[in-house]
Amino acid sequence: MKNYTKYRKGYYMPPVCDMSWAQKEYPDKAPTWCSVDLRDGNQSLIIPMSLDEKIEFYKMLIKVGFKEIEVGFPAASDTEYEFLRRLVDENLIPDDVTVQVLTQAREHIIKKTFEALKGVKNAIVHVYNSTSFAQRQQVFRMSKEEIKQIAVDGAKLLKKLTEEAGADYRFEYSPESFTGTEPEYALEVCNAVLDVWQPTAEKKAIINIPVTVEMSMPHVYAMQVAYISQNLKYRDNVVLSLHPHNDRGCGVADSEMGLLAGADRIEGTLFGNGERTGNADIVTIGMNMFALGVDPQLDFSNMPELVEMYERVTRMHVHERQPYAGALVFAAFSGSHQDAIAKGMKWREETDPGRWTVPYLPIDPEDVGRQYDADVIRINSQSGKGGVGFIMEQKYGIAMPKNMREDFGYCVKGVSDHKHKELMPDEIYQIFQQEYVNAEEPYKLVDFALRKEQNGIRSGEVIMMVDGQEKTFKAKGNGRLDAVSNALQENLGVSYKDLVYSEHALEIGQASRAMAYIGITGEDGRTSWGAGMDTDIITASILALVSAINRMKNGK
Amino acid sequence: MKNYTKYRKGYYMPPVCDMSWAQKEYPDKAPTWCSVDLRDGNQSLIIPMSLDEKIEFYKMLIKVGFKEIEVGFPAASDTEYEFLRRLVDENLIPDDVTVQVLTQAREHIIKKTFEALKGVKNAIVHVYNSTSFAQRQQVFRMSKEEIKQIAVDGAKLLKKLTEEAGADYRFEYSPESFTGTEPEYALEVCNAVLDVWQPTAEKKAIINIPVTVEMSMPHVYAMQVAYISQNLKYRDNVVLSLHPHNDRGCGVADSEMGLLAGADRIEGTLFGNGERTGNADIVTIGMNMFALGVDPQLDFSNMPELVEMYERVTRMHVHERQPYAGALVFAAFSGSHQDAIAKGMKWREETDPGRWTVPYLPIDPEDVGRQYDADVIRINSQSGKGGVGFIMEQKYGIAMPKNMREDFGYCVKGVSDHKHKELMPDEIYQIFQQEYVNAEEPYKLVDFALRKEQNGIRSGEVIMMVDGQEKTFKAKGNGRLDAVSNALQENLGVSYKDLVYSEHALEIGQASRAMAYIGITGEDGRTSWGAGMDTDIITASILALVSAINRMKNGK
Repeated sequence: MKNYTKYRKGYYMPPVCDMSWAQKEYPDKAPTWCSVDLRDGNQSLIIPMSLDEKIEFYKMLIKVGFKEIEVGFPAASDTEYEFLRRLVDENLIPDDVTVQVLTQAREHIIKKTFEALKGVKNAIVHVYNSTSFAQRQQVFRMSKEEIKQIAVDGAKLLKKLTEEAGADYRFEYSPESFTGTEPEYALEVCNAVLDVWQPTAEKKAIINIPVTVEMSMPHVYAMQVAYISQNLKYRDNVVLSLHPHNDRGCGVADSEMGLLAGADRIEGTLFGNGERTGNADIVTIGMNMFALGVDPQLDFSNMPELVEMYERVTRMHVHERQPYAGALVFAAFSGSHQDAIAKGMKWREETDPGRWTVPYLPIDPEDVGRQYDADVIRINSQSGKGGVGFIMEQKYGIAMPKNMREDFGYCVKGVSDHKHKELMPDEIYQIFQQEYVNAEEPYKLVDFALRKEQNGIRSGEVIMMVDGQEKTFKAKGNGRLDAVSNALQENLGVSYKDLVYSEHALEIGQASRAMAYIGITGEDGRTSWGAGMDTDIITASILALVSAINRMKNGK
Repeated sequence: MKNYTKYRKGYYMPPVCDMSWAQKEYPDKAPTWCSVDLRDGNQSLIIPMSLDEKIEFYKMLIKVGFKEIEVGFPAASDTEYEFLRRLVDENLIPDDVTVQVLTQAREHIIKKTFEALKGVKNAIVHVYNSTSFAQRQQVFRMSKEEIKQIAVDGAKLLKKLTEEAGADYRFEYSPESFTGTEPEYALEVCNAVLDVWQPTAEKKAIINIPVTVEMSMPHVYAMQVAYISQNLKYRDNVVLSLHPHNDRGCGVADSEMGLLAGADRIEGTLFGNGERTGNADIVTIGMNMFALGVDPQLDFSNMPELVEMYERVTRMHVHERQPYAGALVFAAFSGSHQDAIAKGMKWREETDPGRWTVPYLPIDPEDVGRQYDADVIRINSQSGKGGVGFIMEQKYGIAMPKNMREDFGYCVKGVSDHKHKELMPDEIYQIFQQEYVNAEEPYKLVDFALRKEQNGIRSGEVIMMVDGQEKTFKAKGNGRLDAVSNALQENLGVSYKDLVYSEHALEIGQASRAMAYIGITGEDGRTSWGAGMDTDIITASILALVSAINRMKNGK
């Protein structure tokens, strides 16, 4: 792949490379969030949203908690123009929400934008022009001074039209294609715009530093942001905003590092929709804060609902591995992961339920509306006893002993490996029932009767179906189970040196039934497991023993 | 969303937080790449790959250029065991490729792993155990010393079994769940393992520092890596490897910053497949180097083929916005982007074809096997003259004048906005034909005959079909077009003050035909455009004029 020689870095380092921001570990308060889903996100869709779809998306953004929403580029298409008018006409802009409109720094486009704004109370007019070296050279063929003048003229027109409208709009300026612009020059243009606007503490201006195309590593961008932040005029009266794209797969890191480097505000989209590789994903950035104990000031507690709406109206797919939101991001297929999760969940319940430290799960899936049994422990041929045991216990109340769990884990893994597919909980439960519970081949329990003798010994009879014939065996032992065990060893040609037993009442589903588990270890050291389920605990235990003997007979 | 209070940072800072790596802007040489697609990637699939599918994937990895490939966890399932045996039996491991096998630091699993390795010449045996605070506390309930002993015992067994096998395997150790481990303790365990292995310059050991769960920002991870790198024993004889996951959406940034901080090797997967949110995406990391002029030592020049294979055998989808590989990552729907791309492509062709600086395209799509016309300029209601003009010129050889392009751009945008869909190039071409070329309503050109008089004046007749009747008009003017124009203005009740004209031969598709474009500006200042296409250039120009008059008549 030799074409790499035609590339050189397309970005510019700032004159001072300050890294002091890196002493901070993570952003410790939420920035101002601005959704650009309805503009940058929408414009990059194969089929842009219809008016009704945009309204639905907009309402969801408000529900999630966005206070600033870029609603479009009203001068760009009829749909965008009409959308803004509909928000106004139908009174869909709450008092605490500011809508933002984008416009190029060109006179007729700015004028049309202001027409669309009529009747809007709180608005941000966002004006931009491209400042990059490549665009000055190739697209506009203009000098730095000429390009700066475009920005200044746009800024003046915004101010003039706002005054004429008697409105109280806020202003935002973006040196578009910032990542290909010399930082000193971008700063110069931003400061010239601010000189026009003269921002105050009451009416702050927004300066937005976009990663129009991601060209550098995130720490380089953070150094650029730090330089701008430290050298902006009227800094106290400026909201420094970031607008990262994701061409190098680092839009989230750009945002977070940019916040550490001095930024106050993030423009991004849900699930990173947007031109090409998309915009910075606000869901991930917000949830990253959440996972470090910082209130993101956005509510993603019903992520499945958000995903459903998003997929329906954008006709895009939230990828299975999309952080915090994808179908598989809490899934553990690996046996050791499942085992650790099961143990971690138990440990948490018993010792520190108010805190989340469960291994392999960056957050509690329930915090984003997901479920442990459906989303976390998933069973394929890579899975093991931990996961299978977890599902059996959580979903069916089956708490088999540790070594039996291992036996069953291998059994399930084998089925999955052989069938070459993931197994759903009900399939796993079925395997358990078929393989272990109340087994009747070759021997079936018919009945038993045991009485206690004066010396404490139990004796009586156990009736079995053997080869289609009912047979009655004399039984005697220290307890009922022991008596039956002795009788069966004597009469059925099986022997084992060790027997382990456990039982519990069933609390899920088949309530009022008892589960018993028995493992018998033969002369060869191999242990065969069986289970019994019955309303009577004694019967359950004897059924478990018969099941274990049947499985031993069947070489299992 | 108040549950954030149950989270606190789950990672540990190193005793020394070195940031000197941040003085480097990007990794300036390729690391050793190790694909873990067939292990970490495979184990996280809903349906793990079949044996044949794994073989196909493996062959593709070799074709891409991987020299180290983790082929599985042979002790974990029959399929994984058999896969390795098949590689050996069918002689599928080239001499310059090393296969890697993963094993927990447990005796019976290590032993089964060595069985699977029989006959393999170059292998890395990768042993791990979990070292994190949470797992020591919740899962193993063991002390630091006990956990370290597991690692040391595993390391010893690897050494012993390798000697017994008379093999020359290399060793790798991972302190699993490193991101939840105290860095000093992880270092202590790694150094204890290295003391067992005693790596030399000839036989280096690999120490792998996984981001098992991504818990911190990438610069924090880089500080942890720098600390390990600077304090590892036998450092010159150790290959320091990284294995980032993507829970916070920063797996790529972790990898790149970790390389700056001292790492030599990256374990990752194609397109970031892997447990939960996936592993670090080697395609993106490699292409990020490529885009900065660094040879990634991997060949992604046929990305569509790679995507096709990947999607088929993993049954996963490469997301539309996946950097460098997704269907939409080179797409520009926005009018201003399209305009800049078209100008940038032209500029490059004319001035510096050996270098890539085209706006809005981080790399030349052709470098990864993509095409300009199908993948870059896409037309929806957000698009403009630049994109439409680009497609018409590149695909159909139609080079209309700038102002006509704008007129046509609005026309196409309107159709897309109205139809609420993306338009394909052939649909755009059809709109052009129907709207502009050889228009016949209300007036149709039937014929014309013009001769040159001695004074250079052209005169003669033009025959038009008007309301179903043929009419013959006298014509006279400075040239043929002027003569016809005069005749039509006099007889058809149209008038215009300005006429612009351009023409060219068609070089694509309809070869040997001429295209003519005419814009006429009426008294109201509005310009109507028409086009003519004919084998004869004079006829084409008169057809263009008639088309423009027809469009003016129709209010267009």
